[in-house]
Amino acid sequence: MTVLLHCFGESGNAYKAALAMELTGIDWEPVFVDFFQGATRSAEFRRINPLGEIPVAETPDGVISQSGIILDWVAETSRQLGWETPEERREILRWVLFDNHKVSGVAGPLRFNMNFLPPDKRQDQVNAFMAMRLGSALKVMETRLAERPWLALDRPTIADISCCGYLYYDEPFGFARPEYPAIDAWLDRISTLDGWKHPYELMPRGLPEG
Amino acid sequence: MTVLLHCFGESGNAYKAALAMELTGIDWEPVFVDFFQGATRSAEFRRINPLGEIPVAETPDGVISQSGIILDWVAETSRQLGWETPEERREILRWVLFDNHKVSGVAGPLRFNMNFLPPDKRQDQVNAFMAMRLGSALKVMETRLAERPWLALDRPTIADISCCGYLYYDEPFGFARPEYPAIDAWLDRISTLDGWKHPYELMPRGLPEG
Repeated sequence: MTVLLHCFGESGNAYKAALAMELTGIDWEPVFVDFFQGATRSAEFRRINPLGEIPVAETPDGVISQSGIILDWVAETSRQLGWETPEERREILRWVLFDNHKVSGVAGPLRFNMNFLPPDKRQDQVNAFMAMRLGSALKVMETRLAERPWLALDRPTIADISCCGYLYYDEPFGFARPEYPAIDAWLDRISTLDGWKHPYELMPRGLPEG
Repeated sequence: MTVLLHCFGESGNAYKAALAMELTGIDWEPVFVDFFQGATRSAEFRRINPLGEIPVAETPDGVISQSGIILDWVAETSRQLGWETPEERREILRWVLFDNHKVSGVAGPLRFNMNFLPPDKRQDQVNAFMAMRLGSALKVMETRLAERPWLALDRPTIADISCCGYLYYDEPFGFARPEYPAIDAWLDRISTLDGWKHPYELMPRGLPEG
């Protein structure tokens, strides 16, 4: 069965799921969700995911939503990018939670506010606050990655896939790779993994390019 | 061995760990961290947790930080409040991630900004933005809990303990129990579990009462 991933190209959270499936050779295809036209607020979509969030994956094991849970399912199903012991599982999960809380959880709304909101709806104080919080989280990653090649274990795992979810996008959101050399090198490391693709190569975009 | 939980009473994230250990009968005691005097920024604390976050638990299985990971450890160690199958584990984890991303991850800084910052440092636009985001997440929980007694499974789990982390505090942060009757009833349900205590009964406070 082909996994159907409900997604759109601009979603870094959807990218995590798409990239993990691509890297582990899981057969999948994107189902475009027109987020910018309000599709995730529709009754039809809410029947698929009551939380109204992208991504959602229709898998042989049922409908799974939330990027971290899809990543978990990919690791268990493919026996790649995952753990071998409960300690390894917890160390991976620690970074996935950190990502949801402080990296993607902030980069997502910040990038949305800075790029996809009409200029008259942008709130500079809010964006400055989020940029400050994102910078603190990126510094934690920078420190970690200055000492080791991968975030959680001595090999790439879904922790790396989760934390990189927003970091390949070019739209400005307060992150410039030259300011974070260890993160920069780590992003290069991930992008040389066999099968890696940029988000816009994996998923249809909801907005016109540029 | 007694688990040592580095914590302070005002931290809802620490409360999740403290409450889960209390409910499952794990032998633990609090080690007060003077967060409001900058203790989590000290070199000494960063040696214990490079992420600089509360809570941290010194357990027989090593030092564990991040509330969601401590909850996971409590469930595995006590064989209570946890899962029996990979599907149950993922459903619990979905709500723990949702909590970190959208409930506690927003309620924490919002409550801090509204109560523990000097008035001249409060940013009304930021607080309004966070209150709007917290309200959306609480509505998801309200809808879920209107249909079922517990968030993830048909019994209380660490998903419930995670999501309730900030919701027993009296300091204002845009959450009033009467506005969310299903959450209100669920909080009552949790607080009648054997061993339940309010955060300020479990952990020393960093600031004077009131």
